[in-house]
Amino acid sequence: MSYNTFGQLFRVTTWGESHGPAIGCVVDGCPPRLALTEADIQPFLDKRKPGQSAFTTQRKEPDQVRILSGVFEGQTTGTPISLMIENTDQRSRDYGDIARTYRPGHADLTYDLKYGIRDYRGGGRSSARETACRVAAGAVARKILGKGVRIRAALVQLGPHDIDRTRWDWEEVNRNPFFCPDAGVVAEWEEYLAGIRKAGSSIGAVIEVVAEGVPAGLGAPVYGKLDSDLAAALMSINAVKGVEIGDGFASASLTGQENADPLYIRDGKLTFGANHAGGILGGISSGQPIVARFAVKPTSSMLTPVPSITTDGKETEVITKGRHDPCVGIRAVPVGEAMMACVLADHLMRHRAQMG
Amino acid sequence: MSYNTFGQLFRVTTWGESHGPAIGCVVDGCPPRLALTEADIQPFLDKRKPGQSAFTTQRKEPDQVRILSGVFEGQTTGTPISLMIENTDQRSRDYGDIARTYRPGHADLTYDLKYGIRDYRGGGRSSARETACRVAAGAVARKILGKGVRIRAALVQLGPHDIDRTRWDWEEVNRNPFFCPDAGVVAEWEEYLAGIRKAGSSIGAVIEVVAEGVPAGLGAPVYGKLDSDLAAALMSINAVKGVEIGDGFASASLTGQENADPLYIRDGKLTFGANHAGGILGGISSGQPIVARFAVKPTSSMLTPVPSITTDGKETEVITKGRHDPCVGIRAVPVGEAMMACVLADHLMRHRAQMG
Amino acid sequence: MSYNTFGQLFRVTTWGESHGPAIGCVVDGCPPRLALTEADIQPFLDKRKPGQSAFTTQRKEPDQVRILSGVFEGQTTGTPISLMIENTDQRSRDYGDIARTYRPGHADLTYDLKYGIRDYRGGGRSSARETACRVAAGAVARKILGKGVRIRAALVQLGPHDIDRTRWDWEEVNRNPFFCPDAGVVAEWEEYLAGIRKAGSSIGAVIEVVAEGVPAGLGAPVYGKLDSDLAAALMSINAVKGVEIGDGFASASLTGQENADPLYIRDGKLTFGANHAGGILGGISSGQPIVARFAVKPTSSMLTPVPSITTDGKETEVITKGRHDPCVGIRAVPVGEAMMACVLADHLMRHRAQMG
Amino acid sequence: MSYNTFGQLFRVTTWGESHGPAIGCVVDGCPPRLALTEADIQPFLDKRKPGQSAFTTQRKEPDQVRILSGVFEGQTTGTPISLMIENTDQRSRDYGDIARTYRPGHADLTYDLKYGIRDYRGGGRSSARETACRVAAGAVARKILGKGVRIRAALVQLGPHDIDRTRWDWEEVNRNPFFCPDAGVVAEWEEYLAGIRKAGSSIGAVIEVVAEGVPAGLGAPVYGKLDSDLAAALMSINAVKGVEIGDGFASASLTGQENADPLYIRDGKLTFGANHAGGILGGISSGQPIVARFAVKPTSSMLTPVPSITTDGKETEVITKGRHDPCVGIRAVPVGEAMMACVLADHLMRHRAQMG
Repeated sequence: MSYNTFGQLFRVTTWGESHGPAIGCVVDGCPPRLALTEADIQPFLDKRKPGQSAFTTQRKEPDQVRILSGVFEGQTTGTPISLMIENTDQRSRDYGDIARTYRPGHADLTYDLKYGIRDYRGGGRSSARETACRVAAGAVARKILGKGVRIRAALVQLGPHDIDRTRWDWEEVNRNPFFCPDAGVVAEWEEYLAGIRKAGSSIGAVIEVVAEGVPAGLGAPVYGKLDSDLAAALMSINAVKGVEIGDGFASASLTGQENADPLYIRDGKLTFGANHAGGILGGISSGQPIVARFAVKPTSSMLTPVPSITTDGKETEVITKGRHDPCVGIRAVPVGEAMMACVLADHLMRHRAQMG
Repeated sequence: MSYNTFGQLFRVTTWGESHGPAIGCVVDGCPPRLALTEADIQPFLDKRKPGQSAFTTQRKEPDQVRILSGVFEGQTTGTPISLMIENTDQRSRDYGDIARTYRPGHADLTYDLKYGIRDYRGGGRSSARETACRVAAGAVARKILGKGVRIRAALVQLGPHDIDRTRWDWEEVNRNPFFCPDAGVVAEWEEYLAGIRKAGSSIGAVIEVVAEGVPAGLGAPVYGKLDSDLAAALMSINAVKGVEIGDGFASASLTGQENADPLYIRDGKLTFGANHAGGILGGISSGQPIVARFAVKPTSSMLTPVPSITTDGKETEVITKGRHDPCVGIRAVPVGEAMMACVLADHLMRHRAQMG
Repeated sequence: MSYNTFGQLFRVTTWGESHGPAIGCVVDGCPPRLALTEADIQPFLDKRKPGQSAFTTQRKEPDQVRILSGVFEGQTTGTPISLMIENTDQRSRDYGDIARTYRPGHADLTYDLKYGIRDYRGGGRSSARETACRVAAGAVARKILGKGVRIRAALVQLGPHDIDRTRWDWEEVNRNPFFCPDAGVVAEWEEYLAGIRKAGSSIGAVIEVVAEGVPAGLGAPVYGKLDSDLAAALMSINAVKGVEIGDGFASASLTGQENADPLYIRDGKLTFGANHAGGILGGISSGQPIVARFAVKPTSSMLTPVPSITTDGKETEVITKGRHDPCVGIRAVPVGEAMMACVLADHLMRHRAQMG
Repeated sequence: MSYNTFGQLFRVTTWGESHGPAIGCVVDGCPPRLALTEADIQPFLDKRKPGQSAFTTQRKEPDQVRILSGVFEGQTTGTPISLMIENTDQRSRDYGDIARTYRPGHADLTYDLKYGIRDYRGGGRSSARETACRVAAGAVARKILGKGVRIRAALVQLGPHDIDRTRWDWEEVNRNPFFCPDAGVVAEWEEYLAGIRKAGSSIGAVIEVVAEGVPAGLGAPVYGKLDSDLAAALMSINAVKGVEIGDGFASASLTGQENADPLYIRDGKLTFGANHAGGILGGISSGQPIVARFAVKPTSSMLTPVPSITTDGKETEVITKGRHDPCVGIRAVPVGEAMMACVLADHLMRHRAQMG
């Protein structure tokens, strides 16, 4: 991971600002002869697309992806795949507020501290709009992993509200506006989030990503560990403040006995008695499902005023009007899936390199 | 991060197995003309060294570091610094158990699944003994950061037991066997951990690392974010299952108002009203203290039997006798500091590169 | 250098095929607050553009570059700069010949051997059209180097014909269709190359690139040597078969005395008595002009038939009709300059990183 | 290639100075379960070892390699292989001359210009002694390539003296002190080089490296080309000033017809009519032998005085007494082989990664 490139062998370089003419990415290192068209990528972008429900920003972006290179007659050629998404809803407006005031919790301040310049329109490069490129790249990564690997994510916590994991239903995830796997909490969550939105507030969330069918052996000690790369990938998503694998922070409270994943032979096959480890041991996949979770902080943009300063050093207050998600965690769900896919594709290729 | 190299410009490549003749690392990219001798590195190794209290493994290793290159007449030359630590206490013993049985929770199984071979003696490459090299490299990283940057870590949770943060005292950290900043819990923790050890059990922990004096502007969007690299660095430490920055997972439950870090001008200077963000906004340091926490799972090696399998696929039970830490989290404290130092040194150099 | 990315800190990722909708590149790591518009890049593209004289391909491409990101109000922002050039002259034609036959000397065969698929239209990814992106990136690199560094290249050998170096005139380079610095040979070269072209043949060339004003100290031992990276950069240009620094291959015939660059103090300053070394000692720039040369093989596409095979393994003969350069070396002149600029910008940033 | 690490997947990090306690390297990424002992490496080191004939330096170094990690019970484990060679003949002497005077043609000056400090003893890090580590790593690389790939090098030009290529005999290479493949010139070369040495002079050379049995498909467009990486690898060897592939610079004088490598089907197999390309087309191996040549400048250390300056800026003259090779090109022969092996192993792994 370096500047704007992610991955070592499956390499994704993203570019573009929220309100420039377009955003895009170059996916390099992709194996040849994989069937790939825009139709393989678009459904994932549609999942992340704004304006899907009352609980996501009302900015209207078709997020139509275009393949500019690397595919010939419907197949990848092994050369770099250039993907581009035009920005169509660059609403003509006055950006004076953002231009002259630092929005607390946003990157406005630190971009200025670092670069001494920033494209303030819609947050510029720091906008979560960049994650559309991740989702597009993730669709390519899935092609490399093949149908045997299934990657799904769900919102498992909305603010203080948990789900009941015994009611987990993957089918439910695509039926509600939260990507929530527990039908039993949806009505309550709708009411809760509507209240948050009406109050001009926002709220955090936790997303869980599960990858099933991942072959054992992916990941490389000691600085190319699968969990280390997953942590970097998920932490690099906008507004993410925490990442955990398997039992994560809960394992700090467990004894060795409680945390143990016993091994058995069942039907002649290696079988695990539990998956506290989240499918990774010593940085290498064990063949169990890979389980990762990440915490997303509440949207910093709110109608509630927050004390702040202007670019020329005067105190002020910031109220963010406009089209914002009351819970950015929701749209982070497909992004989490995409990052998992990219990391696994990269590690699959690294594994093949060393193992022949 | 790639295989056994960590960092992009401040690059650390570690090598060595638990019971080979030595372990070591090559620190590449270090600026020239920094004063450096073994005496600058040794105190950090001594902090991590086994056998310091009843609560860490009784293996006796002096962990004496030797500088083999890159330093001339007491100063770095800008060429690679080779550091070596001999393994002296490679106790002559029968490794038949580890050789033929997979210890649940350890990397034995996944190393075999991946490589089809492993140096089973003391865990080989997957042993936490590798972290001595990280600590040595971290001492070099501190030289780059200079005295203005202060990096300290502490154990803030031992199993289910939290500290009282209002009693936080950095001086206390070096006075008790837990690196605990709260004198008020030490007696209780001693009794608790003694009980765990006597029961042949083990327990997890949470470590907090704080870096003060870090200049604003370190970190680069969007895949070279400071928090993303910190997450990778901390997650790569043995037995770590979770990483968080600032409020971390707690921020998922917060509203935007609760999570806001207001900005003020105080005495003509930019001043923050809070540090929920942990010193990083948009992946870039803000000038506030960098705050990271990581969760360490309980030691997998216990006297309690756990169902497992042999390398030839037969069911068995594993009891790990021998010299083990009941809480590996304790000795992870100086390792966490070292990883923070390495990441910051790397990002300081990356920042200088782009900013001139 | 990895797949389609060049450079470590000044990183250029190129994409696109000869006859796809567009080609482009992402320039990452560029320092902020450099003045940059399309007008800074276009002149360099115009120099490389086809159809400039009778001696380059008659394909008509305006090669109009567009900046899609990374620049705000005329200044770089430190975020990735996406550059795109549309392919306008994708002449509708029958590619059956290239599709079914391997052109000797081209990459058709090896792409198929490696990938099992290739975009055969105009050579696809292996087309020298990719070098337009290098030239565009080179223009950005020059901004980083600043006006104090002057990079120029010239054709110093056309087939068997050398120049007279005593007549070297940089002004002359832009006055003739060869980028030749010796006005005395231009008439002869025109006649010679016209003959080559009429005969349906082609010819090789040697280009010399000179960078003046390069500060001392760029380059890093032992695998980040400036000459090592220059060699990689120049050898990666299409059809290049040799690279040399300073006296290059000629130095193999010299004695130590003949090859010595004595050092003097003149006017209180370090002064070199000669520059056999080409401005690089031990992989590090000495402050003298950096001098590199590279050899370009004759265009493989000719009207003369060459025995070859079809994709299904039958013998045939290949005659390449169409729009080709009789000497591809000519248009490689601005490409050589661009690669020198990219390498120097990258090393300048690497130097700053380590030196602070 | 970055600082002191070479390669992307087969990664070699070298360390050490000429007169420090030891030199060494870490070979990372090596596949597991390859048979490897010191005895596999030592023969290659012995070929490069000083003091083998009257024509190489009389420094006495056993260059005994020791494997410190990454090998278990005679097999590689997939973890980093640490190799160390102690410096035994650090002759106690007065280094005042080198310490206070810049030797023209050496890196003394540029190291000081860059780093402001240098380990002047024997040239420190810039000494060709570092190449022993390359040779050791090359021996590991050969294990990855397997017996089907044969890499050999020879001295094909000694100063102004060429060989007669029709008399090329690989067996002869190991029978004379020049690694010369033409028995017919050996006597003459011995007399010539003895004269050079007696005159206190030195001379350059050209080395040719040939790799046979390399599978087609290695190398990746456009910045990971096999020839681009070979150029970087060979140019990074001390004193190398030029690199060429196949016909190299000679191809600049050829017409397309003269340079063509026709393709045939012979015995049902793809067959080339010539190998002007040196086994690489479009940056990808074609299955033909890979042929590379590199030029080594004359040893800068001579008994003949050369004008120079002192570190405090006074004019002086340098005469280098002591143990030096009159032609450093000779000992570069095994180094060239090693770099070819490392590049091919790296590209084999990169190929496997993408092709599965």
